[in-house]
Amino acid sequence: MSGPMLERAADLVERLRTRGPRVHCLMNTVVQKLVADGLSALGAIPSMTSSPEEVAAFVRKADALCVNLGTLDAARREAIGLALAAAGEAGRPWALDPAHCDYSPPRAAFAEGLLARGPAVLRANPAEHALLAVPEGVVGVVTGLHDRIVLGQRAVAVENGHEWMAKVTGTGCLSGAVIAAFLAVEDEPFAAAASAMLAIGVAAELAAPHARGPGTFEPALLDALAALSPQDILDHGRIGDEQG
Amino acid sequence: MSGPMLERAADLVERLRTRGPRVHCLMNTVVQKLVADGLSALGAIPSMTSSPEEVAAFVRKADALCVNLGTLDAARREAIGLALAAAGEAGRPWALDPAHCDYSPPRAAFAEGLLARGPAVLRANPAEHALLAVPEGVVGVVTGLHDRIVLGQRAVAVENGHEWMAKVTGTGCLSGAVIAAFLAVEDEPFAAAASAMLAIGVAAELAAPHARGPGTFEPALLDALAALSPQDILDHGRIGDEQG
Amino acid sequence: MSGPMLERAADLVERLRTRGPRVHCLMNTVVQKLVADGLSALGAIPSMTSSPEEVAAFVRKADALCVNLGTLDAARREAIGLALAAAGEAGRPWALDPAHCDYSPPRAAFAEGLLARGPAVLRANPAEHALLAVPEGVVGVVTGLHDRIVLGQRAVAVENGHEWMAKVTGTGCLSGAVIAAFLAVEDEPFAAAASAMLAIGVAAELAAPHARGPGTFEPALLDALAALSPQDILDHGRIGDEQG
Repeated sequence: MSGPMLERAADLVERLRTRGPRVHCLMNTVVQKLVADGLSALGAIPSMTSSPEEVAAFVRKADALCVNLGTLDAARREAIGLALAAAGEAGRPWALDPAHCDYSPPRAAFAEGLLARGPAVLRANPAEHALLAVPEGVVGVVTGLHDRIVLGQRAVAVENGHEWMAKVTGTGCLSGAVIAAFLAVEDEPFAAAASAMLAIGVAAELAAPHARGPGTFEPALLDALAALSPQDILDHGRIGDEQG
Repeated sequence: MSGPMLERAADLVERLRTRGPRVHCLMNTVVQKLVADGLSALGAIPSMTSSPEEVAAFVRKADALCVNLGTLDAARREAIGLALAAAGEAGRPWALDPAHCDYSPPRAAFAEGLLARGPAVLRANPAEHALLAVPEGVVGVVTGLHDRIVLGQRAVAVENGHEWMAKVTGTGCLSGAVIAAFLAVEDEPFAAAASAMLAIGVAAELAAPHARGPGTFEPALLDALAALSPQDILDHGRIGDEQG
Repeated sequence: MSGPMLERAADLVERLRTRGPRVHCLMNTVVQKLVADGLSALGAIPSMTSSPEEVAAFVRKADALCVNLGTLDAARREAIGLALAAAGEAGRPWALDPAHCDYSPPRAAFAEGLLARGPAVLRANPAEHALLAVPEGVVGVVTGLHDRIVLGQRAVAVENGHEWMAKVTGTGCLSGAVIAAFLAVEDEPFAAAASAMLAIGVAAELAAPHARGPGTFEPALLDALAALSPQDILDHGRIGDEQG
């Protein structure tokens, strides 16, 4: 099965560069810059405002949405509600990243409420996933050294990546935003999510030889995302079926 | 005319390093770090608070002000009003950057109101400029692959720069802040704006050979801004008259 | 005296990597990413929320706290109060960084109030230190080209570091957070603070040969923090007694 998945991911990388979808991110303040740069490197067009007064206008201009719960405050919670209403009206897909919901019971409760509003994809680390009940029909992406993409009984593992990813703050958040970018160009969320994780994982492997540590790995990763070709996915992607 | 403009820009680069002006930035949260680092690299001293309680004190300590409308919220709108009042009392010049005002009608209306308060310079991309009516006496800077500086019938084009600038989030916002830094050391806004765009454009060209893509281009740009000499402007600057 | 201090710092670098303490930061928005990356590079686990609704839960999960006053607003002031209450109940040590309190009298007054609540360490530059009255029992760290650590009549100077540190926005703020990380693994604040400044200073010196200017120095510094070994401290650390 890996062959067809790789070909699909390669096609989507090309489509992303050609179409340049707009991705609006309700993103924690720590990693806004990295996420914006990563989306731009892949060919998407990021925007980031969390202002309740303006977020609906930005969402209506966007092709997909990423909702990240890091550094969450009252204004961003309000903005998320308005953004999801606008996304619902406009038929825009969205990805949820419940960052650090394992640190704070109110954040976990808020994440549960958002899951009930129907994201296409939930991206989270294992500790965050363990807390949340993923509704039927929502694709789960469990990121780690390897990434698992799960929908019902179907599961695949992406084996690309690099250990420095975990040392650069925001690479997980970037994954959520990149999933949203792929949702903008692919109707099937499972394929979008798997392709996004392949793109990031392959870019990470291609970046590592140009870095000396996690500090220089970050700009090298952005270079690799900007240079990533469909052929790179075919040559280096490693994806396999798993037990669901 | 390019010769005298280059010499003036070279002198101002030197003056900026010698005087070390303070530049207060009301800056979107995405790019605060890049803008602060870019100003520091050129020899200016940045500050960034957007708190209504404190912004006036910071503006009174500053030599110039940059007002950027990205990730705008109610607190920043209030802070901008207080900052401009303090700048008016203290006679400090300011530059306006109506970032993303083409995404949101309320932001465009807010930008129009700020234009009426008399910035020295309006920096914007072509889509943003197309929306706004620049009052007489305000220097317009239209940034793109080449940059145009316009005041009434007078216009010059700066032909320096690099395509990776557009792939690094915040280089446009940095331009607005660097214009403010040059306003702090040069009374004529047209010369300040043209010199700022020359400094950034020349630095971008000197940086590019040290980078492998947009990721490594960002630190290379900061290195180049820190190393930029008056002679670099004279050797590499390309500026020419245009029809107004 | 430098020999025992270097050995203690070397031991603490090792302990930090082994234990991986959680450090919660109430941090200005400009430098959150650099501070998080720097803590991760050393082996600590950063978190950054400033939301009043959630900060107590994050502090209870943390081993130490860093309170930084840059880009301070009403919500962060409220969050700081809640965080210190939680830290007090849980017996967590904390470091105070009164960033830019010399720009704003209300911020200086707020910093004085926080000093009365008993931080283990106050980190500030000379201008900020000059404004504040350090209570008895609080370790003062005065950062500059060389760093001084002071407690009552006792004072040492750390002579490591690099001039580019001053050109990278947030290296001072990172120092405050790294001090908090060392407080999490060492009960004596004086030793924790001196060890933290040695770790950063030695890393800066090891990073500089890999950089071309302040832009490339930042990722090189993160690489060096990630690679820093106890032996590096013993080989390169320079610390000496001073008059108190």
